Amino acid sequence: MSLTALCPGTFDPVTNGHLDIVERASRLFEAVVVAVVENPAKEPLFAPEERVTMLKEAIVGLENVEVESFSGLLVDYAARRDARIIVKGLRAVSDFDYELQMAQMNHHLAGVETCFVPTNPKWSYLSSSLVKEIAGYGADVRGLVPDNVRERLQEKLG
Amino acid sequence: MSLTALCPGTFDPVTNGHLDIVERASRLFEAVVVAVVENPAKEPLFAPEERVTMLKEAIVGLENVEVESFSGLLVDYAARRDARIIVKGLRAVSDFDYELQMAQMNHHLAGVETCFVPTNPKWSYLSSSLVKEIAGYGADVRGLVPDNVRERLQEKLG
Amino acid sequence: MSLTALCPGTFDPVTNGHLDIVERASRLFEAVVVAVVENPAKEPLFAPEERVTMLKEAIVGLENVEVESFSGLLVDYAARRDARIIVKGLRAVSDFDYELQMAQMNHHLAGVETCFVPTNPKWSYLSSSLVKEIAGYGADVRGLVPDNVRERLQEKLG
Amino acid sequence: MSLTALCPGTFDPVTNGHLDIVERASRLFEAVVVAVVENPAKEPLFAPEERVTMLKEAIVGLENVEVESFSGLLVDYAARRDARIIVKGLRAVSDFDYELQMAQMNHHLAGVETCFVPTNPKWSYLSSSLVKEIAGYGADVRGLVPDNVRERLQEKLG
Amino acid sequence: MSLTALCPGTFDPVTNGHLDIVERASRLFEAVVVAVVENPAKEPLFAPEERVTMLKEAIVGLENVEVESFSGLLVDYAARRDARIIVKGLRAVSDFDYELQMAQMNHHLAGVETCFVPTNPKWSYLSSSLVKEIAGYGADVRGLVPDNVRERLQEKLG
Amino acid sequence: MSLTALCPGTFDPVTNGHLDIVERASRLFEAVVVAVVENPAKEPLFAPEERVTMLKEAIVGLENVEVESFSGLLVDYAARRDARIIVKGLRAVSDFDYELQMAQMNHHLAGVETCFVPTNPKWSYLSSSLVKEIAGYGADVRGLVPDNVRERLQEKLG
Repeated sequence: MSLTALCPGTFDPVTNGHLDIVERASRLFEAVVVAVVENPAKEPLFAPEERVTMLKEAIVGLENVEVESFSGLLVDYAARRDARIIVKGLRAVSDFDYELQMAQMNHHLAGVETCFVPTNPKWSYLSSSLVKEIAGYGADVRGLVPDNVRERLQEKLG
Repeated sequence: MSLTALCPGTFDPVTNGHLDIVERASRLFEAVVVAVVENPAKEPLFAPEERVTMLKEAIVGLENVEVESFSGLLVDYAARRDARIIVKGLRAVSDFDYELQMAQMNHHLAGVETCFVPTNPKWSYLSSSLVKEIAGYGADVRGLVPDNVRERLQEKLG
Repeated sequence: MSLTALCPGTFDPVTNGHLDIVERASRLFEAVVVAVVENPAKEPLFAPEERVTMLKEAIVGLENVEVESFSGLLVDYAARRDARIIVKGLRAVSDFDYELQMAQMNHHLAGVETCFVPTNPKWSYLSSSLVKEIAGYGADVRGLVPDNVRERLQEKLG
Repeated sequence: MSLTALCPGTFDPVTNGHLDIVERASRLFEAVVVAVVENPAKEPLFAPEERVTMLKEAIVGLENVEVESFSGLLVDYAARRDARIIVKGLRAVSDFDYELQMAQMNHHLAGVETCFVPTNPKWSYLSSSLVKEIAGYGADVRGLVPDNVRERLQEKLG
Repeated sequence: MSLTALCPGTFDPVTNGHLDIVERASRLFEAVVVAVVENPAKEPLFAPEERVTMLKEAIVGLENVEVESFSGLLVDYAARRDARIIVKGLRAVSDFDYELQMAQMNHHLAGVETCFVPTNPKWSYLSSSLVKEIAGYGADVRGLVPDNVRERLQEKLG
Repeated sequence: MSLTALCPGTFDPVTNGHLDIVERASRLFEAVVVAVVENPAKEPLFAPEERVTMLKEAIVGLENVEVESFSGLLVDYAARRDARIIVKGLRAVSDFDYELQMAQMNHHLAGVETCFVPTNPKWSYLSSSLVKEIAGYGADVRGLVPDNVRERLQEKLG
């Protein structure tokens, strides 16, 4: 049993909350693929390559973690990577209903399992969209995102 | 990386919903220990040994699954079994808050991770207490619990 | 199609919130049976006959509504009354999960439908247990329960 | 008492979850009108006539069910159809708050009642938007929507 | 201790539910500043000056309440006004998760506290967006918004 | 305007999460009374005087905070103390429904306002009952409760 776990998301941009989940997944599964959704429904701030690059810089040192972007259906990508499990952070009840729906659909479509890992309470109020919003107003996001992300947010949002 | 996962619970008695989670855990982890809480807060209908026996009968055929009862703190038992992960089914939002609290406490106490697996929708309305309630009124619980449990419920309740 | 709807509950005691649901059900269905659970899990303050009497006094004037107590499984009682639908008030999210579970179980057991009617916002904070608690401390419950119930609460709780 | 119930929605497109609610409503009320919102806030994939046609094809055999599109306020349409009750499926807690708000507003505006029927658990993860999303990626939606809808989704989304 | 409390919002337009919160805040704190977000994420119907004017007309008589619009980060505006507390109405569980996230972020960024006041049940189904939606269909919004707002909605939406 | 705020609770025993709320309330209001419910529904571990003593030891240094136990209705106690506002920590959605119900009832009974302050995320998984449970199994509760409480828990639970 040599399991690969997927950590899918838009990562626009990656936050310290995302990294916490990836690190914990890397201790629970043999291999972890951080799977970046190329074209999410909502127009992203960063191009897919930028989002992949920021993630790669942020996970240096995690030996069994790889970053890749994908398009199309998540369960098809999971099949290509021979991954039978999806790992997601669960932050709040409002996440729960949507994520549960997706998890059950992915199970229906391809038998892929989803495993929800509770977010570390100290990142419970953190989301990519909130980080972009406050960075757009000039707030300091130190401690909320990795340093490389903070710099790119400043370049992007001035 | 040779991970043992714990599936803790009272299992008073085991339902088909529990079995679905145990089977899925057995495909995701190398070894699974179904950990029966001996003395739950609420007085159980079945003695710990009865609950263990019903579980053992129900999981026949799952090679990497073991059943054992324990008392004391779950994280202490996890340490004795060298298990770093707890697997729980997640059924509904009302489960979520309590389970999240327990998961974060167990992480605080001993760094043990909890991984929530969404319940199969077809068992979403199933719980041990509801099964006992309706069996106590003479309802047929066929299809809700394994056959061995159905028989013991009839002996016990009447 | 001559439908009888059940309004089940403990009604320990009936509140103005319950009455609002019964009245609305009486306008939606040909016949309504208010079905009083004789022996609820939690020890009731009022005996089944007292709870039935208070309800009967409170619904005077609703021609198509009847009050009766029952024991055993709700779906068995529904079959005896030839009722294919259960009407429940829905007050808050915390009600929702439990009621949904019961509704799906009742559908599984006997094909009985449950129809949830949202509580009038002005009764959203009202429950029998809260009424008993505050009446026990001597608070005036005028406007929260019918007058006949207010009097019996005073007799009972002093 | 000859009640007409409305089943309103965008139905973009109708799913097996919607059909389950319509069928159950048709057994509870004398007449059911499936009321298709012509111009929902979010741009629909299918034109109103297409959505009505797909529904009509899917409900063949339900004698007391009619399909019609409408624009304007739902309670005004209900008055034109002499319908005093709205029937909605309730899937998850995240649906609940919004639907409760709408139900209470519709009651305030015109005394129209809303009756929530819990979705069959086996369709709990199903929504029109998720169906469109996965069909857009080429996933097979057999078993999630009626066959006529599956064909039109393929034509539309290629 | 001379505390100024902020009541922030888009107020597009102000409803009777908002006014209820502002009035209650005015009885709890020495000074209240109703802080109108100039450029919310979603394009507003009314210009910032219109929203400020409608609010000013509606709060006549509340001596310790002031209305002002602001742009930028709420915690920066709070610092400029020497306000250490934000007062928000809390209506439903679906509000709760988002508001909790914002409150914790504002506490992280600047130590600003948020105090949630439960909405009066009789306004529980009221929101600016629902008011605009139904007014757009020609419904009478009397009793849901102040009279000056009702008139401007009619002018704006015809 | 010289406001006294009540922080009511069972405090069986006080945790660091409670203290966080009391400290923050002491910075928002002129005077804070920590009001200990003498006879809660569930049999407490510590006598009222013990709970008051532990609180008094824990709040040393907070000049405007006082601790007192009370029996009877909270709103009656509030009237005796001339307090028009209740401050409660809000931890999770499952707290929310019950607390909202109590807040609306207290407003109905006596016009008393309730102000909810979101719990610091780092105490989000903390509750008195969980602390007692894990202390009862011999777990170290250092960092979860003040030191004086930790010692008394050890004496009490052995």
